[in-house]
Formats: sequence, C-alpha cells, structure tokens
Amino acid sequence: MFPTIGPVDGADTAWMLVAFALVLLMTPGLALFYGGMVRSRGVLNMMMMCLSAIPVVWVLWIAFGYSMTFGPDRGGVIGDPTTFAGLRGLLGAFNSDGTDVAGVPLVGHIPALLFVAFQAGFAMVTVALIAGAVADRMKFVSWLVFAGLWATLVYFPVAHWVFSVDGLTAATGGWSVEHLRAVDFAGGTVVEINSGASALVMALFLGRRLGWPKDPMRPHNLPFVMLGAGLLWFGWLGFNAGSTYAANGGAALIMVNTLGAGAVSMVSWLIVERVRHGRPTSFGAASGVVAGLVAITPSCAAVTPMGAMIVGFVAGAVSSYAIELKYRWKYDDSLDVVGVHLVSGIVGTVMIGLVGSPDSLIGRAGLFYGGGVDLLWRQIVAVLVVLAYAMAVTSLIALALKYTIGLRVHPQHEADGVDDGLHAESAYDFHIARGVRLGGGDR
Amino acid sequence: MFPTIGPVDGADTAWMLVAFALVLLMTPGLALFYGGMVRSRGVLNMMMMCLSAIPVVWVLWIAFGYSMTFGPDRGGVIGDPTTFAGLRGLLGAFNSDGTDVAGVPLVGHIPALLFVAFQAGFAMVTVALIAGAVADRMKFVSWLVFAGLWATLVYFPVAHWVFSVDGLTAATGGWSVEHLRAVDFAGGTVVEINSGASALVMALFLGRRLGWPKDPMRPHNLPFVMLGAGLLWFGWLGFNAGSTYAANGGAALIMVNTLGAGAVSMVSWLIVERVRHGRPTSFGAASGVVAGLVAITPSCAAVTPMGAMIVGFVAGAVSSYAIELKYRWKYDDSLDVVGVHLVSGIVGTVMIGLVGSPDSLIGRAGLFYGGGVDLLWRQIVAVLVVLAYAMAVTSLIALALKYTIGLRVHPQHEADGVDDGLHAESAYDFHIARGVRLGGGDR
Amino acid sequence: MFPTIGPVDGADTAWMLVAFALVLLMTPGLALFYGGMVRSRGVLNMMMMCLSAIPVVWVLWIAFGYSMTFGPDRGGVIGDPTTFAGLRGLLGAFNSDGTDVAGVPLVGHIPALLFVAFQAGFAMVTVALIAGAVADRMKFVSWLVFAGLWATLVYFPVAHWVFSVDGLTAATGGWSVEHLRAVDFAGGTVVEINSGASALVMALFLGRRLGWPKDPMRPHNLPFVMLGAGLLWFGWLGFNAGSTYAANGGAALIMVNTLGAGAVSMVSWLIVERVRHGRPTSFGAASGVVAGLVAITPSCAAVTPMGAMIVGFVAGAVSSYAIELKYRWKYDDSLDVVGVHLVSGIVGTVMIGLVGSPDSLIGRAGLFYGGGVDLLWRQIVAVLVVLAYAMAVTSLIALALKYTIGLRVHPQHEADGVDDGLHAESAYDFHIARGVRLGGGDR
Repeated sequence: MFPTIGPVDGADTAWMLVAFALVLLMTPGLALFYGGMVRSRGVLNMMMMCLSAIPVVWVLWIAFGYSMTFGPDRGGVIGDPTTFAGLRGLLGAFNSDGTDVAGVPLVGHIPALLFVAFQAGFAMVTVALIAGAVADRMKFVSWLVFAGLWATLVYFPVAHWVFSVDGLTAATGGWSVEHLRAVDFAGGTVVEINSGASALVMALFLGRRLGWPKDPMRPHNLPFVMLGAGLLWFGWLGFNAGSTYAANGGAALIMVNTLGAGAVSMVSWLIVERVRHGRPTSFGAASGVVAGLVAITPSCAAVTPMGAMIVGFVAGAVSSYAIELKYRWKYDDSLDVVGVHLVSGIVGTVMIGLVGSPDSLIGRAGLFYGGGVDLLWRQIVAVLVVLAYAMAVTSLIALALKYTIGLRVHPQHEADGVDDGLHAESAYDFHIARGVRLGGGDR
Repeated sequence: MFPTIGPVDGADTAWMLVAFALVLLMTPGLALFYGGMVRSRGVLNMMMMCLSAIPVVWVLWIAFGYSMTFGPDRGGVIGDPTTFAGLRGLLGAFNSDGTDVAGVPLVGHIPALLFVAFQAGFAMVTVALIAGAVADRMKFVSWLVFAGLWATLVYFPVAHWVFSVDGLTAATGGWSVEHLRAVDFAGGTVVEINSGASALVMALFLGRRLGWPKDPMRPHNLPFVMLGAGLLWFGWLGFNAGSTYAANGGAALIMVNTLGAGAVSMVSWLIVERVRHGRPTSFGAASGVVAGLVAITPSCAAVTPMGAMIVGFVAGAVSSYAIELKYRWKYDDSLDVVGVHLVSGIVGTVMIGLVGSPDSLIGRAGLFYGGGVDLLWRQIVAVLVVLAYAMAVTSLIALALKYTIGLRVHPQHEADGVDDGLHAESAYDFHIARGVRLGGGDR
Repeated sequence: MFPTIGPVDGADTAWMLVAFALVLLMTPGLALFYGGMVRSRGVLNMMMMCLSAIPVVWVLWIAFGYSMTFGPDRGGVIGDPTTFAGLRGLLGAFNSDGTDVAGVPLVGHIPALLFVAFQAGFAMVTVALIAGAVADRMKFVSWLVFAGLWATLVYFPVAHWVFSVDGLTAATGGWSVEHLRAVDFAGGTVVEINSGASALVMALFLGRRLGWPKDPMRPHNLPFVMLGAGLLWFGWLGFNAGSTYAANGGAALIMVNTLGAGAVSMVSWLIVERVRHGRPTSFGAASGVVAGLVAITPSCAAVTPMGAMIVGFVAGAVSSYAIELKYRWKYDDSLDVVGVHLVSGIVGTVMIGLVGSPDSLIGRAGLFYGGGVDLLWRQIVAVLVVLAYAMAVTSLIALALKYTIGLRVHPQHEADGVDDGLHAESAYDFHIARGVRLGGGDR
C-alpha cells in the first residue's frame, strides 16, 4: 500500500525541490554561524563537525534511518528498519523516454525520494546543532562516531514519534503525534529540544574548555555569525514551510510566521541586552533571530501571524537570559545550544498550548483561545518525554565513547587549537606590510 | 470584495514562496555588501542597521503598513490604514485536515499572506539601503526610530502610488501607476530613487565622517563586498521576476533582463574605471553589478533583453561617474547610495521612456520604438515627484530627530569606532604567532 | 517549427525559474571557493576572473552562442549561429494585459527564454572554473579575451555535441548525444572535462607561479573555501536537477543522487587523506564534496542512489590522489582544477558505463547491470574526443594570446600580488591595537 504510485503534483514538487535545497543549505549556514563564534584556531574543526553530519546521516538514512523513522510503526516507538532499507520500493520506474508520466512512488503529492531527501536534511542539521556544545575540545573521530550513534538512537526514534503521521508513509505513525496528539509541526521536540538537551549532556561529559570561563573566548568573526544567521533564516523558510509538502495557503501562513517570529525575537533579545548590559550587540541580534526561528519551528502551523510574534518575543527574551545560566552553573555550553535551542525549543513547543489558534493551519485552540489546558498538557508531556529520552540516551552514548575511544582531545591539541591539532591546518593566512605573516593558528 | 477567496494556483504559489525567500535574503546580502565596504571597526553596526530593518518594518507592516500601501485608495495618495490592519481578513480559514482546498484569501492567484510577505521584503531592503549613507556615525536608536518613521511616511505612501494597481488588492490604486500611468515594474522609484534621495538627505544632515575625505576609509573586506553583490544578484532575481506573481513567460523575460543588465553594467563600470583610473577594480565590478540591477528594477518588464543590456550599460557608466560627485560637492555619501541607487534608479526609470518596447511584458513603446515622448514625460514626472517627496519628508524626519534624540554618535564613539562605541563589540579576533592578538576594534 | 508556441507548464516553469537562480549563484559561489584558496594578495583577481565570466559569456551567448549551441545542427558538430542570433524568435509576444496566456516560445514545457538563461549559467560557471589554474599570474585583459574565445571555440561546440538533443530546440542535435549515444546528463564532458583539460593546458602555457612549489602558498581563508563549497552544493542541485526541465520524479532522483555523491565523496577524500597524511583536513572535505558533485554531474540521471554513492566514493578517492600529480610532474594547477574537475569528470562519465542502471531516469544498463561494454565504450569515446578537442583548441587559443597580447603578468606585479598589480586594491584592511594596520596586500 505504501508508497502509492501515481503522478506527482507538479506545483508541490516544484516547491519541495527548492525546499529541500533550502534545508540542505542550513548545514553550511550553521557551519558559518558556529564557525564565526569560536576562536580563529577552532573554526575549521567546528565547520567540519557541522558538514560531516551530512555524510554520516546520509549513509545511515539510506541504510535504515529513513525506514526507522517512516517505516511501518512498531508499538508507536519506532518504524520497521527493514521495510525501506536501502530505499527499497521508493525509487520506482521511469518511462523509456526518461519521464515519469506513469507515476512514481509518492508521499502525499510529491515523489517519495524528494520526501526522503527533505527529511534527511532535517536529520543532518539537527546532528550538526550539537557541535556547538563541544567546540574546541572533542576528538574528530569521536564526533563522527557520536554523530552516527546519536542519529540512530536518538534522532530516528524521536522523529518517528513526531513526524510519522498515520497514512503518510505507513498505515500508522508515532505515539507523540498520533496517540498523545501533541503538536510539533516542524520539529521543536525532534530538532530543537532533542539537540539542545543532548548538547547539555555532551557539554557536561566533555567538561569545560581550558581556561573557561576566565578567558574571554569571544567570537572571532562576527560578520560570519550574522551572515550565518541570514543563511539560516533563508533556509529555515524551506524547513518550516516545506513541512506542508505543498505549495498552498498553509505554506504561505508558515512563511509569514517564520518571518515574524525571527524578526520579533531579534527585538526582544536586543531589548533585554540593552536593559541588562547597556548595549545591543550584533551577536545578540543574530542569536535573537535564531531563538525566534527555533521557537516557531514547532508552532509555525499552529498559530496566527500575531501569535508567531508573541512566540518570537517570548523566545528572544527568555533565551537571552538563559544563555547566562552556564556561567552560574559552570557548564561550558560553548555556543549556547542549550540556551537557544533547548530553551527556545521548549518555549515554542509549550506555547502552542497557550496561543495555538483555531484560525491556523493546525486549527487547535490553546489556553488563550478557549481550548483550556487540553493542548497545553499534551505539549508539556511531549517536551518532557523527549527531553528525558534525549538526555538519557545521549548520556549512554557519551559514557560508551568516553570509556572506549575517548571524547576529549589531547590537552596539547586543545592548547594549540583544534584546527592545528586535529586537522593540521589554520583557517587564515593574511599578509601584511613589512613581511609579517598572520595566521589563524598559534603556530 | 477584496481579497477574493479561492483555490490558489499551485505553480504560481510555488514560485512566489521561493521569490519571497530570495527577497528576504537580500537584506542579509546587503548587510554583507555594505559591511565589507566600511572599516573593520564599523562593520557590525552597519550589518545591524541593515538587519534591524527587518523587525522594524515587519511590525509596522502588520500593524498598518500593508494596509496603507495596498488598502482601498484614498485620493490616489494612500491606502486606508485600517482596512487590513493586523492582517484583518487576509488569514482565511483552513480545512479541518490542515489543507486549504476550499480556498484562502487571494491576491491574483497566490495566497494573500504570501503577497504580504513578499512585499514586506521590499520595504525591508529599501529601508536598509539608506544605512549606507549614514555609515559609522549615526546613533543606533536614532536609526531605529528613523527606520520606522521613514517606512511609514515615505515608503508606504510611495509604494501605494506605484505598486497598488487597480483591482489587485483593492478596487482602485495609486496615482502614479493608475493616473499618471508611469511604468515602474519592480520599484525604481519606490525602492531605488526613494532610498537614494533619502540617503542624500541623511548624508547632508549627519555631516561627514571624522577625517573624511582626507583619510582613505577604504573597504575593509572586499571579498565580502563581492559575495554580497553575488547574493544580491541571486535575491534580485526573485525581487524582479517575483513581481509578476506568476510562473510564466513574463517571469522568464524578467530573469533574462535582470541577468543581462547586471552583467553589462559590470562591463561598462569597469571600462570607465579602466579609462579614467587605469585599473578595473573588484569594488567597481561589484558596484557595477548593483548599478545595473538598480536600473533594471523599474524596467525589467518593459524592455527586451537587448534593451536591458542598453539600460545596464548606461547605468554602469553613469553611476561610475556619479559616485565621484561626493568628493566634488563634499557630501559624505559613505557607501555610494546616491551614486548607485539614486542615479541608476533615475537612469532605469527614465530610460523606459526611451527603450520601452512593445515586445515586452508591459508592451508600451518608448521614444526609440516609435512611442514618441508620451511615456518619457510620464517617467520623468514619476521620478521628479518621488525625488521631491522623498527629499522633503526625509528632511522633516531628520530635523525632528536632530532636535530631539539627536542623529550623530558621540565623537568619542566615532573616533573609537561605532562597533565598540554603540555595541561594545569588535568584529574580528584573529590570533597570530607569538601571542599577538588582532581585533577588529581599536582597543 | 522551433520553437513551438504554447502555454507553459506552470510547475515546470516555477521550478526552472529557481533552478536558473541556483545555477547563477554557482559563479559567485565558485569565486568564494577559489578566492579562499589563493593567497590574500590574489583573492580579488581570482574573484574577478570568475565573476567576469558572467558578462563575457552573456554577450556572446545572446549574440551567437545560444544559436551555435542549440540552433539547427550542421553535421553534428555545431548549431547554425544565425538562427537564434540576438535571441531572434525566442522572445514571443505577450497579451495586452501583460500576461502570456496565449503562449510564448517554448523549449519543452518551459519558456524558451528561461532555457536560454539556464543554459547560459552553465557556460558562465564552466569558463570560470578554468580560472583556478591560472591563479595569481594571468593578465586580466588576456583572461577576458581568453574567456570569450574559449567559450566560442570550445564550450559552445562541445555543448552542442552533448546538450543539443533531437527535437528539443531544433530537429536534429549533436553527434555525442545523438550519434555516439553517450550519456552525459548535466555536463561531465561539457563542463568538467572541458574545463579541466583546458585548465591543464593553460597551467602549462602560463608556467608556474614564482616560487612554486617551494613556497607553501596555502589557502588564505579556509572558511571561505568551505562556505564556497556549501554554496556550490546548493547551486548544483539546480544545475543537475534543473537539467530535467521539469518538476517531477526524475528531478527528485537527481536531487538524491547529487546529495549522496557529494556526501560520500567527502568521506572517501578524508579517508585517503587520513591514511596517507595522518589528518583529515577541512580543505580536503571541501574538495571532496566538489569532486563528488563533479562526478555525479554526467551521471546524476543514469544511476540509482546507491550508484551515485559509489560514483562519489570513487571520485573522492581518485581525486584526492590526483591532486598530487602536479607536484610530481611540476605543472602548477594552482587550485586543482585538473585533479578535481578533469579527473572526477572522467570518473563520473566513464562510470556510467559501469554502474548505469535500468532503474534510473536514463534507464541504460552499464557493465555491472548486465549492459555489457556497449555503454562503456561510448562513454570512453565521448571522454576522449572532448579531452582531445579541448586540449587542442585551448592550446591554439593560448598560443595566439601568448604571441599577441601575452598571457602572463609583469613579474613585478606577480611579486607584489596581482590584486595590487592588476586592480590597485588589496582585499582586507583590518585594524588592530596600537595603531598597526593590516592589509591584504604586501604594500
């Protein structure tokens, strides 16, 4: 029965071809966003951790990950890993003239393979998000193994719970969306809370960077951070509005919401910064945009444009406070994955229970729209379960790695900078007058 | 009657979802383009002025700006600000299964909300353009207030005059497009002349940067400028070809024209530069591309591909001269907003009266195609009115700000660099051998 | 008969409008990728060589290039350069209301002008690719003349051989695709082998950079290289999947293949690097992605997703070896155009003869799928003919330039850096503490 074979909807396919490209761009965008935040002697390692998520996830996704996520449901908790293993049954056949008039395997109205690629992009960027918490101090080979294990044991199951909808790719779907009936449209739990909670665990297992928090460790290239935020925003439009799998009015609503939440959260972050520290910073502006985008990810189809702005406002304000917790509690969440993704992910997911609107695409009313607490508690349960699951399983992965191949780089490599230590490179080589040569490393 | 409710055209919607994303990317692209042009100690402030245009415009756009621009016409000069206030009536309703089969509010064949978002992107990047004239010396809070006032008092009215077409979003539209019947397809007056003329006013009111024009103040990062120009070109394809609101042959013609004008204006700028100064520069190449894109913005649907190349050639040559006027007349148009956007905006708008072609999408003949001076004088009037209006109103805004919250940063902040003074940041922190640390600020 | 007039397919047009934009972005993306690889005193010249390919190609493309490529076939070797000269007959007419309901000239189901633009983007980036071999030592004016001659004498004919399919834009097409019946879907021979072979010739004619290979000449900005690779990947999705000219299941398959090949080739490159040199580098990761994208270009429609990964794996491994040949044979292929584009272009084109699959869009079986050597020898012949043709004609162009306007910059300009020598600019101007000023040039 799944997938059905038929002619694709051309318009939906046209949109989703691009939406996939936009989602794929998010990982290089994140590499730039994170890369600008670290010191100049760790930027290459950071960018490689992000980009390497692409091949690691892709190989596993093809082999069994897609099937674990979207295969026939087993007890609400996981898809059958064998059904679509190796993309079995999803390729279809083409006419002898190279067209697909007769039809290809479909998910909804688009080619199944396009759905496969689009969803792969989600998994890639989610894995890459965790890299921000392990900056400057994780063995590269351990990162690669971690990425594979985490995708398999954390991402694929949780994505099944939330994204595997009854009848989309299999007859029955995951427990969160179908039994709990929580709303998480584009991945507040799957992408944001999942990665943020796991980032906290990894930061704790790895320990602090040498010198942290005494040494300033300020971003080495803030224009990269701002351009990275811009590319992320651009890509996020495909991420959220592509999650409709259709070029329709729902996608348009999501576009407006994704724009509005990012815009307003920039404002609230800067206001908090201005009030507390006296100056609105570019780092705050970029972080604020991302916090808003994180919060609107689960809620983009569940709120009105006004609701999106409320979600963005709260997310920016809360996350701008939350990033300082690491100094109080002394965990080195190096690039604020916890403060931005975990915290704003929770804000966005829970607030659906408050400002979810009957006028939205999802159409379910939160507390403020007369829906009582019915949606609210479901949202809270969805958050808590994913939070607990991600922290527990990531802890097990971290423990397993710590006592086998090890997590942390050699202290000398850390002192020299991981770019030099792990990749034998330095990022920059600027020439200046009078023969002095400047490099990104400390050599 | 407006908006009508109905099923969207999927193909047009697919294209416009992307066109919106492309237009949104223009503002970060401009931030990079401008950011590379200033000194390293002002790049963050420049990027923040650009990016902050997004939330400022968005909040006003939702509240009343869209309605002022596209609401029912009041005397040809402004739309009713209350009709669509808060996006009233534009959200529509979705089916219980989360689709919009039954129809959503439409503008043309696309969801009204998508039109709202696309046009918001125009307003955002137009406001951001002005930042290039106030580089390194404007208070950030004054910029934010200016941005809001200017959008409200200048952009929204002028956009109504030009973009509010009879029957598109309301029964009757603005005077420029409907009564004067001038041609300005994607915003030569609304976007380019509007911002360029206002940039001139702001440069005059703010005065020159300390040390200008004696100190060189050369661009601190020309690769950023070139990448920024590339991203602007990419986004501009959505800006111009999206202004058809349709995926059709007209959009294809506009793509070709937007490509050709940018390409040829790069050549003419470099030729002028080579002849006059002996060397073609990368800065000239990037500026030339943008000059051509500016000039083709009003004319992209009104000329043939050959006409587009003529428009681009003239724009590149004229603007490469025009940017030197600031040294003769001693106004510090820091990043050449006047020389590029005002001048090439005028070139492109007026030249429709010369090379407007019956074979184009607009189909009206300019002087060289046998249309006489009928179109030419309308174009000139459209230019002059917008020029006068923008300069007058921007002067009033500047005066009001100057004598209340003030325009210019504290001299010490300017001397130290606005990144440090206004945002307590410096852009870069490169490490080099032997422990010397390099930063973007002068600290 | 050609082009036919009719209504466009909206969905295919929506997709191709974006695919064109994506392809156009590849040239700025390449400029960044290459620009980061050279020393800081040559980055601007490198970016200008890339970007200047856009106007040079566009002017020739409009004048006669499109017609040479897609005009009526003359003996299998070239299109009639006059048929579509100046885009004659491709513009069509629009209705008086500015729409194209009645139809526009079509290629397949999309507007002919959109096809013209899309294919122009191919020619632009192909010319720009060669710039990587002549880094830091070619006269800019000679580059411009070379670009024009090479496009005319090499690119347009070879593109005719391969891309001019019977009945697409003229009744009969080029010999490679129609008589030899080799498979080169998106340009392994036209784009990759063509540019790579010509790059080798140019590197030999120009000679080595001063000091090469003794001086290290390492990339001055590796984050640019990685972001450039990311932008290329993003654009390449439009390049390959746009070559279907349709939003359908075939485009989806190509998306998956383009993702997979790039991902896996990153892995194989890094494995080879790790084994041979002890460290996986960011430079290797970026190069590996590009090698895979090169190899999947001809084969993207001819293999399954598994086949694409095999192609990518081989390409990454082989190219990571091949880039070292220049040190053994002492040709200064400065940015590895030969090692990556020529070698992986050959790998990808020939491997269609091995792993070409009946289940793909092309549907022809290679050796490993029971097709015997029939496809394999055709692929080898296609490769050898293009290789020989490109090398021969490029040699003639190089000779003609060498003995007229000259190829190589003045030694003083080379020693000072070409940015300063040819463009009177330096890329960067970073300020640091205590008044020391850093610039990108050696002044």
